[in-house]
Amino acid sequence: MSIRVIEGGVCSAKGFKANGIHCGIRKNHPKRDLALIVSECRAAAAAVYTTNLVKGAPLVVTKAHLADGYAQAAICNSGNANTCNANGIEVAEQTCEAVASALGIPAQDVVVASTGVIGQPLDVTPIVNGIPSLVEGLSASGDAVAAEGIMTTDTRMKAVAVEFTVGGKTCRIGGIAKGSGMIHPNMATMLVFLTSDAAIAPAMLQKAVKEDITATFNMLSVDGDTSTNDMVTVMANGMAGNSLIDADGPDFQEFTAALNMVTARLCRMIAGDGEGATKLLECKVSGAGDLAMARTVAKSVVCSSLFKAAMFGADANWGRVLCAIGYSGAAVDVTKIGVSFRSAAGSVTVCQNGAGVPFSEEEAAKVLKEKEIEILVSLGLGEASATAWGCDLTYDYVKINGDYRT
Amino acid sequence: MSIRVIEGGVCSAKGFKANGIHCGIRKNHPKRDLALIVSECRAAAAAVYTTNLVKGAPLVVTKAHLADGYAQAAICNSGNANTCNANGIEVAEQTCEAVASALGIPAQDVVVASTGVIGQPLDVTPIVNGIPSLVEGLSASGDAVAAEGIMTTDTRMKAVAVEFTVGGKTCRIGGIAKGSGMIHPNMATMLVFLTSDAAIAPAMLQKAVKEDITATFNMLSVDGDTSTNDMVTVMANGMAGNSLIDADGPDFQEFTAALNMVTARLCRMIAGDGEGATKLLECKVSGAGDLAMARTVAKSVVCSSLFKAAMFGADANWGRVLCAIGYSGAAVDVTKIGVSFRSAAGSVTVCQNGAGVPFSEEEAAKVLKEKEIEILVSLGLGEASATAWGCDLTYDYVKINGDYRT
Repeated sequence: MSIRVIEGGVCSAKGFKANGIHCGIRKNHPKRDLALIVSECRAAAAAVYTTNLVKGAPLVVTKAHLADGYAQAAICNSGNANTCNANGIEVAEQTCEAVASALGIPAQDVVVASTGVIGQPLDVTPIVNGIPSLVEGLSASGDAVAAEGIMTTDTRMKAVAVEFTVGGKTCRIGGIAKGSGMIHPNMATMLVFLTSDAAIAPAMLQKAVKEDITATFNMLSVDGDTSTNDMVTVMANGMAGNSLIDADGPDFQEFTAALNMVTARLCRMIAGDGEGATKLLECKVSGAGDLAMARTVAKSVVCSSLFKAAMFGADANWGRVLCAIGYSGAAVDVTKIGVSFRSAAGSVTVCQNGAGVPFSEEEAAKVLKEKEIEILVSLGLGEASATAWGCDLTYDYVKINGDYRT
Repeated sequence: MSIRVIEGGVCSAKGFKANGIHCGIRKNHPKRDLALIVSECRAAAAAVYTTNLVKGAPLVVTKAHLADGYAQAAICNSGNANTCNANGIEVAEQTCEAVASALGIPAQDVVVASTGVIGQPLDVTPIVNGIPSLVEGLSASGDAVAAEGIMTTDTRMKAVAVEFTVGGKTCRIGGIAKGSGMIHPNMATMLVFLTSDAAIAPAMLQKAVKEDITATFNMLSVDGDTSTNDMVTVMANGMAGNSLIDADGPDFQEFTAALNMVTARLCRMIAGDGEGATKLLECKVSGAGDLAMARTVAKSVVCSSLFKAAMFGADANWGRVLCAIGYSGAAVDVTKIGVSFRSAAGSVTVCQNGAGVPFSEEEAAKVLKEKEIEILVSLGLGEASATAWGCDLTYDYVKINGDYRT
């Protein structure tokens, strides 16, 4: 397999255009608040949704629209989650109709998403009024403006694309994502829009995404809170000209490997830009008895508030790691656990066989002052491994969320 | 039943003395770091322990010592958790032997506990050297110094006592507790030492404590991290002269009601003094389909980092409450949920039937600026109710834990 990262995001795959504008949902803020992604032709489409019982109205509408396995456009607003209000479904449907009418496609082929404050009515007027210019400005280089349009408290836009080969044909998968709070593994995801020009059957596309998120977005946590509006959607329009992927096999494997390269990179971007974060934390667990154990342990470490605060302080307080492993629920053998910290500045082993080993605090602080920290945990029980992504807990997380609505 | 709160803590029950000293475990800090509680006679004893697989050495030793259902003394140091180090068991045993020898009792009758940093060797020398003066200073008014001796990042000591009647005899239960980080419900507890002069069989005492914590300490969360050293112990020496409680019945019910009054108050104290906390959060869920649902929902709300940060900012962001209920795992009907905030300054209803209702932001901010906030959640499904306790997430939590070890 040969998969390489290329420039771009949702417009890297053939036949996709995008745009992002400020339509006025965020009244007092000039940031773009409406994004649109459109395929030249109808595309196989799939999605996974939050498991939160409180679900945003757009998810309900999108789920109905994707029931047939196809879509051609995805629209997303930021600034209001369109959730827990009286007429959310109606507003989401009106949004899809306005997009459909401007593009000359059925409303059924439009994916809709919203992100922002929960529980406030969303006025559809600025959206409907903005759609003509949103459509007019669609461009094959619209990645950045679309990525900005879906951002909330994100400080950086998140876009990735890769190129790979299926049956001799060059294909592409790309995506954009928004973080950066209300993100917690094993239950849900966040807003991610993926596009591909590979030809793949809807059922195989759904299978690819569903399997992929167990190792990517579901292994990511910013704050332990599972959003009401999280969703990962993918559209694959077949314009690369490969023969249709409609079963398991080498072509499907190539597609899923390429998908994983995109989603794992988006995970790192989301974690590294978590609300208030100053550091990306990447916990790599090896030697687990099975995959479930590896994942449980890795997630427990990146979810620990105490460990996250210690990382903010560049404090090599490995007792926090052991503690989080101990309460994870995984049947570990404490006397076999080893822990090291690693970064661009080097690595330091702090625990072997479940007990502390002497290390230089100075050396450890140097390692932990970097922006990307790996926490290497060996369990000494088997061959399984897993990675989870998170970020540190900072003053700014508290600041951002102490007064989120104003 | 008539149970009344009285002055004191672990020394309120007849025949108990306590003391706390600075023995030198915290080298550069004058705070008392060693506490001792002693009963005049051997007492029925029971305990519950952390479910963290990483367990402090003192818990292992205490569990062995309580296997026979009796104890006469409890010793606890702060400043070092005696956990994840090479000779923890040895140090815990030496501590018990030194106490036993100074008191003239078997080491088997000593409960031992430690709290502080994980993963550093604990030097037994200052403990052994301190025990003679610790024993010499034992006093029936030693509540406060003992409560101080077990504190770590706590800012206030936590002690409660109540008086009640069993078979015409006046009995007492009292306790002291330490918080204030690494506290998370449904898995474990924290350090709590309870004493009583009631006569109760060890098996009934164990039953009483085990049932009580499901509604008290297991409904408490400061930061979602379950400690390695948590433990609730109780000694009941029978000196009140009531006829032995050795079965279910009115006497046992009276005892458990008194116990609950002590432990629920300690919960409020621990939550209100959580690391960095400025507010006590008390989530009261009513109208749940069953008790498990009520507890799950209440705990999910007080555990949400986003909601806790909003409370720090006195921001009536009730969408965070709905979100936390939605991902709790409880099978709620979102369209029936109501939410109000209440405090000494009044109350404000923010959500009915799962959607926002108009409210005065000014009024809400007034309610939420108080030090004790009740979050009233009605689920509209049945008759069950539950309460969970937590605290807000603040800059100081991050500060304390960004550099805990130094």
